[in-house]
Amino acid sequence: MKLTILGCHAATPSSNGNPTSQVLEINNQFVLIDCGEGTQVSLRRNKIKFSKINHIFISHLHGDHFYGLIGFLSTLSLLKREKDLHIYGPVGLKEIILLQLKLSKSWTTYDLKFHELSGKESERIVENKYFTVDTIPLKHRIYTNGFLFREQVKDRPLLIEKALNYNIDKSLYRSIKKGKDITLDDGTIISNAELTGNPPEPKSYAYCSDTKYTETIIPIIKKVSLLYHEATFLERHLALAEITKHTTAVQAAKLAAKSEVGQLILGHYSARYDNLQEFLDEAQPHFEQTQMAQDGMRINF
Amino acid sequence: MKLTILGCHAATPSSNGNPTSQVLEINNQFVLIDCGEGTQVSLRRNKIKFSKINHIFISHLHGDHFYGLIGFLSTLSLLKREKDLHIYGPVGLKEIILLQLKLSKSWTTYDLKFHELSGKESERIVENKYFTVDTIPLKHRIYTNGFLFREQVKDRPLLIEKALNYNIDKSLYRSIKKGKDITLDDGTIISNAELTGNPPEPKSYAYCSDTKYTETIIPIIKKVSLLYHEATFLERHLALAEITKHTTAVQAAKLAAKSEVGQLILGHYSARYDNLQEFLDEAQPHFEQTQMAQDGMRINF
Repeated sequence: MKLTILGCHAATPSSNGNPTSQVLEINNQFVLIDCGEGTQVSLRRNKIKFSKINHIFISHLHGDHFYGLIGFLSTLSLLKREKDLHIYGPVGLKEIILLQLKLSKSWTTYDLKFHELSGKESERIVENKYFTVDTIPLKHRIYTNGFLFREQVKDRPLLIEKALNYNIDKSLYRSIKKGKDITLDDGTIISNAELTGNPPEPKSYAYCSDTKYTETIIPIIKKVSLLYHEATFLERHLALAEITKHTTAVQAAKLAAKSEVGQLILGHYSARYDNLQEFLDEAQPHFEQTQMAQDGMRINF
Repeated sequence: MKLTILGCHAATPSSNGNPTSQVLEINNQFVLIDCGEGTQVSLRRNKIKFSKINHIFISHLHGDHFYGLIGFLSTLSLLKREKDLHIYGPVGLKEIILLQLKLSKSWTTYDLKFHELSGKESERIVENKYFTVDTIPLKHRIYTNGFLFREQVKDRPLLIEKALNYNIDKSLYRSIKKGKDITLDDGTIISNAELTGNPPEPKSYAYCSDTKYTETIIPIIKKVSLLYHEATFLERHLALAEITKHTTAVQAAKLAAKSEVGQLILGHYSARYDNLQEFLDEAQPHFEQTQMAQDGMRINF
């Protein structure tokens, strides 16, 4: 998986900070996660081809997470996209987009497939041959979901010398990689374990923004490879975090530790802070594998 | 008047070109004209204080002219604006904005005063002590207005030596500047023409985007100080201009000549052209006082 941070700042776009948006690459499939104002320009700046994106996930209907969506969808029409585009987001998102298309007497050159979310429990919303996506119900001022992305289990690597030793026909290699045992012409059964190694552990990515600190999500995000968690405030503004239903850097790090994740990335910084290094300084004592998101950052994991 | 071009490109924002937006300063009052995606960042980059803007004019509901509006309005709330904000634009704009505020459970910290337009004839939509605004009905694929901004006539400059010679009481100076004659204590009437000079000619600005070439607007924009007219295409794409109801650079220049305007600025260039200099080369033979809009350009007139 490869994550590109297009924007990781709270509330409002500025010359030196974009609102939330990310692109996740999973097995050569690209998904867009949230889409603040200016996202299409950030996609261009980061040289991500618009046509590669087939799924968009919107966490909630605060503007810094979706005001760039209508512009991106319009540009796809100008580019004459034909492939279906799937959009997952809260109930209401479809109404906002369709109203604007209607009033501009525009139409998309492709089919917009809306999948409106209203569930309060985690649910699987995508399953294809490349990846699965589950919602992560978050606790914010309005209905909000995080998203858990998980690679599908890859084929078992064939131990080619073993296969040659047994003179196994090449036409069976595909089913061996899928985990099947083999029966030789003489009736001997060769167990799959003898013919294959273990596939690489599927990577997983949990995106959690915006939310107050909540341990209810720990069972969902347990042991993910990478967790992006909002950290809008520093610890001296803990009271403000509670009122506005956001998280501090320390809280995000504690949650990462309790969830035993591989790595943590912080983001969604309030514009009130000049020195973002403080977020890292506060979080790292609680979870060492912490890094800070920056616009334009790429993480391979 | 001072005009700042925030964006002057058609269709879609990119790293090197913003969609349409302008700020006009009239007698120290600031108005925003159209508001494509990214306008709030351009305002910051051009150091224009958000709080100074009290009027916003939206020409039509194609995205490159208004997708930045909801984000700008939201940011004004984050900045805790309290003053009323007046928005002039086609019917439907209010519904788009209010739907998004409702679904985000947000509210503005100030009163949004919508003035929805649906008239087919030019009408006066603003008259205050600083300026007037009239609509310029344009011909595009959807309902569209340009806007004519005109300074209010300034006070007549008092010829102070004349006033002193006649021993006129200072308390009358204000009414003299407004054009009143004066009756002296002995009954002699002194005509205003003797006491004042002519005030400076009020400046005017006509904004025309998007539209096909139409001479119906000539009586409205006749002799304005400055005309901004869209020039989406070069002459070799005249047929395309007609189909999409846009204008070529040559057509814009011819219209400027027929309207006897002081200066012409071209903008709203299609992204298909690499060399924008061609717009000027095609227009200037038809109207010499032509210049090309560029993002970040300022024009005093």
